[in-house]
Amino acid sequence: MPDSRTPSGDQPSDQTVPKVVVSRISLYLRELQRLQAAGQQTISSGTLGALLGFSDAQVRKDLGFFGQFGYPGVGYRCDELIHAMRDILGTNHRWPVVMVGVGNLGQALLGYRGFGRQNFSIEAAFDTDPSKVGTVIQGLTIRDVAELPEVVRRLGIRLGMIVVPADRAQEVADRLVAAGIDGIVNFAPVTLTLPPHVETVAVDLAIELEQLSFAVTNKFGKPAGEGPAGAQEPR
Amino acid sequence: MPDSRTPSGDQPSDQTVPKVVVSRISLYLRELQRLQAAGQQTISSGTLGALLGFSDAQVRKDLGFFGQFGYPGVGYRCDELIHAMRDILGTNHRWPVVMVGVGNLGQALLGYRGFGRQNFSIEAAFDTDPSKVGTVIQGLTIRDVAELPEVVRRLGIRLGMIVVPADRAQEVADRLVAAGIDGIVNFAPVTLTLPPHVETVAVDLAIELEQLSFAVTNKFGKPAGEGPAGAQEPR
Repeated sequence: MPDSRTPSGDQPSDQTVPKVVVSRISLYLRELQRLQAAGQQTISSGTLGALLGFSDAQVRKDLGFFGQFGYPGVGYRCDELIHAMRDILGTNHRWPVVMVGVGNLGQALLGYRGFGRQNFSIEAAFDTDPSKVGTVIQGLTIRDVAELPEVVRRLGIRLGMIVVPADRAQEVADRLVAAGIDGIVNFAPVTLTLPPHVETVAVDLAIELEQLSFAVTNKFGKPAGEGPAGAQEPR
Repeated sequence: MPDSRTPSGDQPSDQTVPKVVVSRISLYLRELQRLQAAGQQTISSGTLGALLGFSDAQVRKDLGFFGQFGYPGVGYRCDELIHAMRDILGTNHRWPVVMVGVGNLGQALLGYRGFGRQNFSIEAAFDTDPSKVGTVIQGLTIRDVAELPEVVRRLGIRLGMIVVPADRAQEVADRLVAAGIDGIVNFAPVTLTLPPHVETVAVDLAIELEQLSFAVTNKFGKPAGEGPAGAQEPR
Protein backbone atom coordinates (compact mmCIF):
# COMPACT_ATOMS: atom_id res chain seq x y z
CA MET A 1 0.00 0.00 0.00
CA PRO A 2 1.23 3.57 -0.56
CA ASP A 3 2.82 5.00 2.55
CA SER A 4 4.70 8.23 3.09
CA ARG A 5 7.18 6.47 5.39
CA THR A 6 10.05 4.97 3.43
CA PRO A 7 13.31 3.31 4.46
CA SER A 8 15.66 6.08 5.54
CA GLY A 9 18.93 4.47 4.48
CA ASP A 10 20.17 2.69 1.39
CA GLN A 11 18.87 -0.63 2.64
CA PRO A 12 17.04 -2.68 0.03
CA SER A 13 13.35 -3.33 0.70
CA ASP A 14 12.50 -6.62 2.38
CA GLN A 15 11.04 -7.86 -0.89
CA THR A 16 14.50 -8.11 -2.42
CA VAL A 17 16.05 -10.04 0.47
CA PRO A 18 14.99 -13.68 0.97
CA LYS A 19 13.54 -14.31 4.43
CA VAL A 20 16.07 -17.05 5.03
CA VAL A 21 18.89 -14.50 4.62
CA VAL A 22 17.28 -12.23 7.21
CA SER A 23 16.99 -15.14 9.62
CA ARG A 24 20.69 -15.90 9.14
CA ILE A 25 21.49 -12.26 9.96
CA SER A 26 19.90 -12.94 13.36
CA LEU A 27 22.12 -15.99 13.78
CA TYR A 28 25.28 -14.09 12.81
CA LEU A 29 24.34 -11.33 15.23
CA ARG A 30 23.90 -13.79 18.11
CA GLU A 31 27.25 -15.40 17.43
CA LEU A 32 29.00 -12.03 17.16
CA GLN A 33 27.47 -10.88 20.42
CA ARG A 34 28.69 -14.06 22.07
CA LEU A 35 32.21 -13.60 20.67
CA GLN A 36 32.31 -9.95 21.68
CA ALA A 37 31.22 -10.83 25.22
CA ALA A 38 34.12 -13.30 25.28
CA GLY A 39 36.53 -10.49 24.36
CA GLN A 40 37.04 -11.20 20.66
CA GLN A 41 37.52 -8.08 18.52
CA THR A 42 37.73 -9.32 14.93
CA ILE A 43 36.55 -12.37 13.02
CA SER A 44 36.81 -13.75 9.48
CA SER A 45 33.82 -14.84 7.40
CA GLY A 46 35.26 -18.36 7.44
CA THR A 47 35.40 -18.56 11.24
CA LEU A 48 31.98 -16.96 11.68
CA GLY A 49 30.51 -19.38 9.16
CA ALA A 50 32.24 -22.41 10.67
CA LEU A 51 30.86 -21.59 14.12
CA LEU A 52 27.34 -21.75 12.67
CA GLY A 53 27.80 -24.50 10.11
CA PHE A 54 27.82 -22.24 7.02
CA SER A 55 30.54 -21.70 4.40
CA ASP A 56 32.48 -18.44 4.27
CA ALA A 57 30.97 -17.84 0.81
CA GLN A 58 27.50 -18.07 2.34
CA VAL A 59 28.39 -15.52 5.01
CA ARG A 60 29.83 -13.11 2.45
CA LYS A 61 26.89 -13.55 0.10
CA ASP A 62 24.37 -12.92 2.89
CA LEU A 63 26.17 -9.76 4.02
CA GLY A 64 26.49 -8.66 0.40
CA PHE A 65 22.75 -8.04 0.30
CA PHE A 66 23.27 -5.14 2.65
CA GLY A 67 26.57 -3.54 1.67
CA GLN A 68 30.33 -3.84 2.07
CA PHE A 69 31.69 -4.90 5.44
CA GLY A 70 35.08 -5.90 6.79
CA TYR A 71 38.73 -5.24 5.96
CA PRO A 72 41.06 -7.23 3.65
CA GLY A 73 43.37 -9.45 5.68
CA VAL A 74 41.62 -8.59 8.96
CA GLY A 75 38.04 -9.75 8.48
CA TYR A 76 35.26 -8.02 10.34
CA ARG A 77 35.46 -5.92 13.46
CA CYS A 78 32.90 -7.50 15.81
CA ASP A 79 31.58 -4.18 17.15
CA GLU A 80 31.12 -2.70 13.68
CA LEU A 81 29.45 -5.79 12.29
CA ILE A 82 27.11 -6.00 15.29
CA HIS A 83 26.13 -2.39 14.74
CA ALA A 84 25.63 -2.98 11.01
CA MET A 85 23.48 -6.04 11.61
CA ARG A 86 21.33 -4.23 14.12
CA ASP A 87 20.93 -1.49 11.52
CA ILE A 88 19.81 -4.10 9.00
CA LEU A 89 17.35 -5.65 11.44
CA GLY A 90 16.15 -2.29 12.72
CA THR A 91 17.19 -3.03 16.30
CA ASN A 92 19.70 -0.27 17.00
CA HIS A 93 16.54 1.42 18.25
CA ARG A 94 14.65 0.07 21.22
CA TRP A 95 11.21 -1.30 20.30
CA PRO A 96 8.41 -1.03 22.82
CA VAL A 97 6.14 -4.08 22.55
CA VAL A 98 2.72 -5.03 23.90
CA MET A 99 1.81 -8.55 24.91
CA VAL A 100 -1.68 -10.05 25.11
CA GLY A 101 -2.14 -13.13 27.28
CA VAL A 102 -0.36 -13.77 30.57
CA GLY A 103 -0.88 -17.48 31.11
CA ASN A 104 2.12 -19.72 31.79
CA LEU A 105 3.87 -18.85 28.55
CA GLY A 106 3.11 -15.13 28.78
CA GLN A 107 4.52 -15.03 32.29
CA ALA A 108 7.65 -16.81 31.10
CA LEU A 109 8.05 -14.33 28.26
CA LEU A 110 7.73 -11.40 30.68
CA GLY A 111 10.81 -12.76 32.43
CA TYR A 112 12.76 -13.67 29.28
CA ARG A 113 15.98 -11.68 29.18
CA GLY A 114 16.68 -12.41 25.52
CA PHE A 115 14.19 -9.70 24.47
CA GLY A 116 15.94 -6.84 26.24
CA ARG A 117 19.32 -7.98 24.96
CA GLN A 118 18.04 -7.53 21.39
CA ASN A 119 16.41 -4.17 22.19
CA PHE A 120 12.80 -5.24 22.67
CA SER A 121 10.97 -4.08 25.75
CA ILE A 122 7.56 -5.37 26.77
CA GLU A 123 5.94 -2.14 27.93
CA ALA A 124 2.44 -3.39 28.61
CA ALA A 125 0.75 -6.76 29.10
CA PHE A 126 -2.96 -7.52 28.81
CA ASP A 127 -5.39 -10.27 29.71
CA THR A 128 -9.15 -10.73 29.93
CA ASP A 129 -9.09 -12.82 33.10
CA PRO A 130 -10.34 -10.59 35.97
CA SER A 131 -8.17 -12.56 38.41
CA LYS A 132 -5.07 -11.50 36.46
CA VAL A 133 -5.97 -7.90 35.59
CA GLY A 134 -4.39 -5.56 38.15
CA THR A 135 -1.79 -8.06 39.36
CA VAL A 136 1.89 -7.24 38.97
CA ILE A 137 4.17 -9.69 37.09
CA GLN A 138 7.87 -8.92 36.55
CA GLY A 139 7.14 -5.32 37.52
CA LEU A 140 4.33 -4.86 34.98
CA THR A 141 0.73 -4.29 36.03
CA ILE A 142 -1.48 -6.52 33.91
CA ARG A 143 -4.18 -4.50 32.16
CA ASP A 144 -7.62 -5.30 30.82
CA VAL A 145 -7.51 -5.91 27.08
CA ALA A 146 -10.12 -3.15 26.67
CA GLU A 147 -7.34 -0.64 27.43
CA LEU A 148 -5.27 -1.85 24.45
CA PRO A 149 -6.10 0.95 21.96
CA GLU A 150 -5.40 3.72 24.46
CA VAL A 151 -2.08 2.22 25.64
CA VAL A 152 -0.84 1.46 22.10
CA ARG A 153 -1.58 5.01 21.04
CA ARG A 154 -0.13 6.65 24.13
CA LEU A 155 3.13 4.67 24.10
CA GLY A 156 3.52 4.77 20.30
CA ILE A 157 3.74 0.99 20.14
CA ARG A 158 3.94 -0.80 16.78
CA LEU A 159 4.72 -4.41 17.68
CA GLY A 160 2.53 -6.88 19.54
CA MET A 161 2.84 -10.45 20.78
CA ILE A 162 -0.12 -12.82 20.92
CA VAL A 163 0.25 -15.36 23.72
CA VAL A 164 -3.34 -16.60 24.09
CA PRO A 165 -4.85 -20.02 23.29
CA ALA A 166 -5.34 -20.82 19.59
CA ASP A 167 -9.13 -20.31 19.68
CA ARG A 168 -8.73 -16.72 20.90
CA ALA A 169 -5.77 -15.66 18.75
CA GLN A 170 -7.69 -14.26 15.77
CA GLU A 171 -9.89 -12.11 17.99
CA VAL A 172 -6.81 -10.72 19.72
CA ALA A 173 -5.14 -10.12 16.35
CA ASP A 174 -8.18 -8.13 15.23
CA ARG A 175 -7.94 -6.02 18.38
CA LEU A 176 -4.23 -5.37 17.82
CA VAL A 177 -4.84 -4.38 14.19
CA ALA A 178 -7.70 -2.08 15.22
CA ALA A 179 -5.38 -0.49 17.79
CA GLY A 180 -2.94 0.37 14.99
CA ILE A 181 -0.24 -2.28 15.47
CA ASP A 182 2.03 -2.81 12.42
CA GLY A 183 3.55 -6.20 13.29
CA ILE A 184 2.52 -9.25 15.27
CA VAL A 185 4.49 -12.17 16.70
CA ASN A 186 1.99 -14.97 17.16
CA PHE A 187 2.75 -17.69 19.72
CA ALA A 188 -0.65 -19.37 19.24
CA PRO A 189 -0.52 -22.47 17.00
CA VAL A 190 -2.96 -21.07 14.43
CA THR A 191 -2.65 -19.09 11.20
CA LEU A 192 -3.98 -15.53 11.49
CA THR A 193 -5.91 -13.64 8.84
CA LEU A 194 -4.52 -10.11 8.72
CA PRO A 195 -4.73 -7.08 6.44
CA PRO A 196 -1.80 -6.90 4.00
CA HIS A 197 -0.14 -3.90 5.68
CA VAL A 198 0.33 -5.85 8.93
CA GLU A 199 3.45 -8.03 9.13
CA THR A 200 3.35 -11.24 11.10
CA VAL A 201 5.75 -13.92 12.26
CA ALA A 202 4.47 -17.15 13.73
CA VAL A 203 6.10 -18.96 16.63
CA ASP A 204 5.11 -22.57 17.04
CA LEU A 205 7.01 -24.20 19.86
CA ALA A 206 6.44 -27.69 18.42
CA ILE A 207 7.96 -26.88 15.02
CA GLU A 208 11.53 -27.11 16.29
CA LEU A 209 10.76 -30.56 17.70
CA GLU A 210 9.31 -31.56 14.34
CA GLN A 211 12.39 -30.34 12.51
CA LEU A 212 14.51 -32.30 14.96
CA SER A 213 12.31 -35.36 14.45
CA PHE A 214 12.91 -35.10 10.69
CA ALA A 215 16.67 -34.81 11.13
CA VAL A 216 16.92 -37.68 13.61
CA THR A 217 14.46 -39.87 11.67
CA ASN A 218 16.32 -39.48 8.42
CA LYS A 219 19.64 -40.15 10.06
CA PHE A 220 18.77 -42.98 12.40
CA GLY A 221 15.35 -44.37 11.44
CA LYS A 222 12.28 -44.55 13.63
CA PRO A 223 11.98 -43.81 17.37
CA ALA A 224 13.28 -46.62 19.58
CA GLY A 225 10.54 -48.81 21.00
CA GLU A 226 8.06 -47.83 18.29
CA GLY A 227 6.84 -49.75 15.27
CA PRO A 228 6.62 -53.51 14.80
CA ALA A 229 10.33 -54.21 14.40
CA GLY A 230 11.61 -52.26 17.37
CA ALA A 231 8.68 -52.72 19.74
CA GLN A 232 10.52 -54.86 22.29
CA GLU A 233 14.06 -53.94 21.47
CA PRO A 234 16.31 -52.33 24.00
CA ARG A 235 18.28 -49.35 22.75
CA MET B 1 29.33 -40.85 9.08
CA PRO B 2 28.70 -44.51 8.27
CA ASP B 3 25.77 -45.93 10.19
CA SER B 4 24.03 -49.27 9.90
CA ARG B 5 20.67 -47.62 10.57
CA THR B 6 19.18 -46.26 7.35
CA PRO B 7 15.83 -44.68 6.51
CA SER B 8 13.26 -47.44 6.32
CA GLY B 9 11.18 -46.03 3.47
CA ASP B 10 11.96 -44.41 0.14
CA GLN B 11 12.44 -41.05 1.81
CA PRO B 12 15.51 -39.14 0.71
CA SER B 13 18.07 -38.41 3.40
CA ASP B 14 17.85 -35.01 5.05
CA GLN B 15 21.01 -33.96 3.25
CA THR B 16 19.14 -33.82 -0.05
CA VAL B 17 16.20 -31.75 1.24
CA PRO B 18 16.83 -28.08 2.07
CA LYS B 19 15.97 -27.22 5.67
CA VAL B 20 13.61 -24.51 4.52
CA VAL B 21 11.54 -27.13 2.68
CA VAL B 22 11.27 -29.22 5.84
CA SER B 23 10.15 -26.17 7.79
CA ARG B 24 7.45 -25.50 5.18
CA ILE B 25 6.25 -29.09 5.57
CA SER B 26 5.54 -28.21 9.20
CA LEU B 27 3.56 -25.16 8.07
CA TYR B 28 1.54 -27.18 5.54
CA LEU B 29 0.82 -29.77 8.20
CA ARG B 30 -0.45 -27.13 10.66
CA GLU B 31 -2.74 -25.63 8.03
CA LEU B 32 -4.07 -29.04 6.97
CA GLN B 33 -4.76 -29.98 10.58
CA ARG B 34 -6.66 -26.73 11.02
CA LEU B 35 -8.69 -27.34 7.84
CA GLN B 36 -9.44 -30.92 8.80
CA ALA B 37 -10.61 -29.81 12.24
CA ALA B 38 -12.95 -27.39 10.44
CA GLY B 39 -14.42 -30.29 8.45
CA GLN B 40 -12.65 -29.81 5.12
CA GLN B 41 -11.84 -33.07 3.29
CA THR B 42 -9.87 -32.03 0.20
CA ILE B 43 -7.73 -29.09 -0.83
CA SER B 44 -5.83 -27.92 -3.92
CA SER B 45 -2.17 -26.90 -3.89
CA GLY B 46 -3.29 -23.41 -4.90
CA THR B 47 -5.63 -23.00 -1.94
CA LEU B 48 -3.16 -24.50 0.51
CA GLY B 49 -0.44 -22.20 -0.79
CA ALA B 50 -2.67 -19.13 -0.77
CA LEU B 51 -3.60 -19.72 2.88
CA LEU B 52 0.09 -19.57 3.77
CA GLY B 53 1.28 -16.99 1.26
CA PHE B 54 3.05 -19.43 -1.10
CA SER B 55 2.37 -20.16 -4.78
CA ASP B 56 0.81 -23.47 -5.85
CA ALA B 57 4.06 -24.22 -7.70
CA GLN B 58 5.99 -23.85 -4.45
CA VAL B 59 3.65 -26.26 -2.67
CA ARG B 60 3.94 -28.86 -5.44
CA LYS B 61 7.71 -28.49 -5.63
CA ASP B 62 8.09 -28.92 -1.87
CA LEU B 63 5.92 -32.03 -1.83
CA GLY B 64 7.77 -33.32 -4.87
CA PHE B 65 10.84 -33.89 -2.72
CA PHE B 66 8.99 -36.67 -0.95
CA GLY B 67 6.85 -38.39 -3.58
CA GLN B 68 3.60 -38.13 -5.49
CA PHE B 69 0.54 -36.89 -3.64
CA GLY B 70 -2.98 -35.88 -4.62
CA TYR B 71 -5.46 -36.64 -7.40
CA PRO B 72 -5.95 -34.82 -10.72
CA GLY B 73 -8.99 -32.55 -10.59
CA VAL B 74 -9.48 -33.18 -6.86
CA GLY B 75 -6.30 -31.99 -5.22
CA TYR B 76 -5.18 -33.56 -1.97
CA ARG B 77 -7.24 -35.47 0.56
CA CYS B 78 -6.51 -33.72 3.85
CA ASP B 79 -6.29 -36.92 5.90
CA GLU B 80 -3.93 -38.61 3.44
CA LEU B 81 -1.69 -35.57 3.14
CA ILE B 82 -1.56 -35.14 6.92
CA HIS B 83 -0.50 -38.76 7.27
CA ALA B 84 2.09 -38.38 4.51
CA MET B 85 3.55 -35.25 6.08
CA ARG B 86 3.77 -36.88 9.47
CA ASP B 87 5.58 -39.76 7.77
CA ILE B 88 8.02 -37.28 6.25
CA LEU B 89 8.59 -35.54 9.58
CA GLY B 90 8.75 -38.80 11.52
CA THR B 91 5.80 -37.86 13.73
CA ASN B 92 3.32 -40.61 12.98
CA HIS B 93 5.08 -42.16 15.95
CA ARG B 94 4.88 -40.62 19.39
CA TRP B 95 8.23 -39.24 20.60
CA PRO B 96 9.01 -39.31 24.29
CA VAL B 97 11.07 -36.24 25.22
CA VAL B 98 13.05 -35.14 28.27
CA MET B 99 13.25 -31.54 29.41
CA VAL B 100 15.99 -29.98 31.55
CA GLY B 101 15.14 -26.77 33.37
CA VAL B 102 11.77 -25.96 34.93
CA GLY B 103 11.95 -22.22 35.44
CA ASN B 104 9.16 -20.01 34.10
CA LEU B 105 9.65 -21.09 30.52
CA GLY B 106 10.07 -24.77 31.38
CA GLN B 107 6.85 -24.70 33.37
CA ALA B 108 5.07 -23.04 30.46
CA LEU B 109 6.37 -25.71 28.08
CA LEU B 110 5.13 -28.46 30.40
CA GLY B 111 1.64 -27.05 29.91
CA TYR B 112 1.96 -26.37 26.18
CA ARG B 113 -0.64 -28.42 24.29
CA GLY B 114 1.00 -27.93 20.90
CA PHE B 115 3.55 -30.66 21.68
CA GLY B 116 1.02 -33.43 22.26
CA ARG B 117 -0.91 -32.44 19.15
CA GLN B 118 2.22 -33.09 17.06
CA ASN B 119 2.99 -36.36 18.87
CA PHE B 120 5.65 -35.20 21.32
CA SER B 121 5.27 -36.13 24.95
CA ILE B 122 7.45 -34.71 27.72
CA GLU B 123 8.00 -37.85 29.79
CA ALA B 124 10.45 -36.50 32.35
CA ALA B 125 11.61 -33.07 33.53
CA PHE B 126 14.78 -32.26 35.43
CA ASP B 127 16.26 -29.41 37.43
CA THR B 128 19.17 -28.87 39.80
CA ASP B 129 17.30 -26.58 42.18
CA PRO B 130 16.56 -28.61 45.36
CA SER B 131 13.41 -26.55 45.93
CA LYS B 132 12.05 -27.79 42.58
CA VAL B 133 13.21 -31.42 42.62
CA GLY B 134 10.38 -33.61 43.88
CA THR B 135 7.62 -31.09 43.19
CA VAL B 136 4.86 -32.02 40.73
CA ILE B 137 4.18 -29.74 37.73
CA GLN B 138 1.52 -30.59 35.17
CA GLY B 139 1.44 -34.10 36.58
CA LEU B 140 5.19 -34.68 36.24
CA THR B 141 7.46 -35.11 39.25
CA ILE B 142 10.55 -32.97 38.70
CA ARG B 143 13.72 -35.06 39.03
CA ASP B 144 17.29 -34.27 39.93
CA VAL B 145 19.43 -33.89 36.82
CA ALA B 146 21.73 -36.62 38.19
CA GLU B 147 18.99 -39.13 37.30
CA LEU B 148 19.10 -38.13 33.62
CA PRO B 149 21.18 -41.07 32.26
CA GLU B 150 19.08 -43.70 34.01
CA VAL B 151 15.74 -42.18 32.92
CA VAL B 152 16.84 -41.66 29.31
CA ARG B 153 17.99 -45.27 29.11
CA ARG B 154 14.96 -46.76 30.83
CA LEU B 155 12.40 -44.82 28.76
CA GLY B 156 14.32 -45.15 25.49
CA ILE B 157 14.31 -41.39 24.99
CA ARG B 158 16.19 -39.82 22.08
CA LEU B 159 15.09 -36.17 22.12
CA GLY B 160 15.81 -33.56 24.77
CA MET B 161 14.89 -29.92 25.38
CA ILE B 162 17.25 -27.51 27.10
CA VAL B 163 15.35 -24.80 28.98
CA VAL B 164 18.06 -23.47 31.30
CA PRO B 165 19.83 -20.08 31.35
CA ALA B 166 22.43 -19.50 28.62
CA ASP B 167 25.42 -19.93 30.94
CA ARG B 168 24.30 -23.46 31.90
CA ALA B 169 23.16 -24.69 28.48
CA GLN B 170 26.44 -26.24 27.31
CA GLU B 171 26.86 -28.20 30.53
CA VAL B 172 23.32 -29.55 30.20
CA ALA B 173 23.95 -30.37 26.53
CA ASP B 174 27.03 -32.37 27.53
CA ARG B 175 24.93 -34.28 30.05
CA LEU B 176 22.25 -35.04 27.45
CA VAL B 177 24.86 -36.24 24.96
CA ALA B 178 26.52 -38.40 27.60
CA ALA B 179 23.11 -39.88 28.40
CA GLY B 180 22.76 -40.95 24.75
CA ILE B 181 20.36 -38.32 23.40
CA ASP B 182 20.34 -38.02 19.56
CA GLY B 183 18.66 -34.63 19.17
CA ILE B 184 18.38 -31.44 21.20
CA VAL B 185 16.02 -28.49 21.01
CA ASN B 186 17.83 -25.62 22.68
CA PHE B 187 15.76 -22.77 24.13
CA ALA B 188 18.81 -21.04 25.63
CA PRO B 189 20.09 -18.10 23.57
CA VAL B 190 23.54 -19.61 23.02
CA THR B 191 25.16 -21.78 20.34
CA LEU B 192 25.99 -25.28 21.57
CA THR B 193 29.08 -27.28 20.70
CA LEU B 194 27.95 -30.84 20.00
CA PRO B 195 29.40 -34.00 18.48
CA PRO B 196 28.47 -34.37 14.79
CA HIS B 197 26.08 -37.29 15.36
CA VAL B 198 23.82 -35.17 17.57
CA GLU B 199 21.22 -33.04 15.78
CA THR B 200 20.22 -29.72 17.24
CA VAL B 201 17.65 -27.03 16.58
CA ALA B 202 17.88 -23.68 18.33
CA VAL B 203 14.89 -21.73 19.59
CA ASP B 204 15.52 -18.09 20.30
CA LEU B 205 12.37 -16.33 21.35
CA ALA B 206 13.73 -12.93 20.31
CA ILE B 207 14.49 -13.97 16.73
CA GLU B 208 10.87 -13.71 15.63
CA LEU B 209 10.71 -10.18 17.02
CA GLU B 210 13.89 -9.35 15.11
CA GLN B 211 12.46 -10.74 11.89
CA LEU B 212 9.35 -8.69 12.49
CA SER B 213 11.47 -5.62 13.19
CA PHE B 214 13.20 -6.10 9.84
CA ALA B 215 9.91 -6.44 7.98
CA VAL B 216 8.29 -3.44 9.67
CA THR B 217 11.46 -1.31 9.43
CA ASN B 218 11.87 -1.92 5.73
CA LYS B 219 8.24 -1.24 5.05
CA PHE B 220 7.61 1.72 7.26
CA GLY B 221 10.94 3.16 8.44
CA LYS B 222 12.15 3.52 12.00
CA PRO B 223 10.19 2.97 15.23
CA ALA B 224 7.82 5.82 16.05
CA GLY B 225 9.14 8.15 18.71
CA GLU B 226 12.77 7.14 18.07
CA GLY B 227 15.54 9.05 16.35
CA PRO B 228 15.94 12.79 15.96
CA ALA B 229 13.20 13.38 13.38
CA GLY B 230 10.42 11.50 15.11
CA ALA B 231 11.36 12.05 18.74
CA GLN B 232 8.41 14.26 19.64
CA GLU B 233 6.00 13.24 16.92
CA PRO B 234 2.66 11.70 17.72
CA ARG B 235 1.81 8.65 15.64
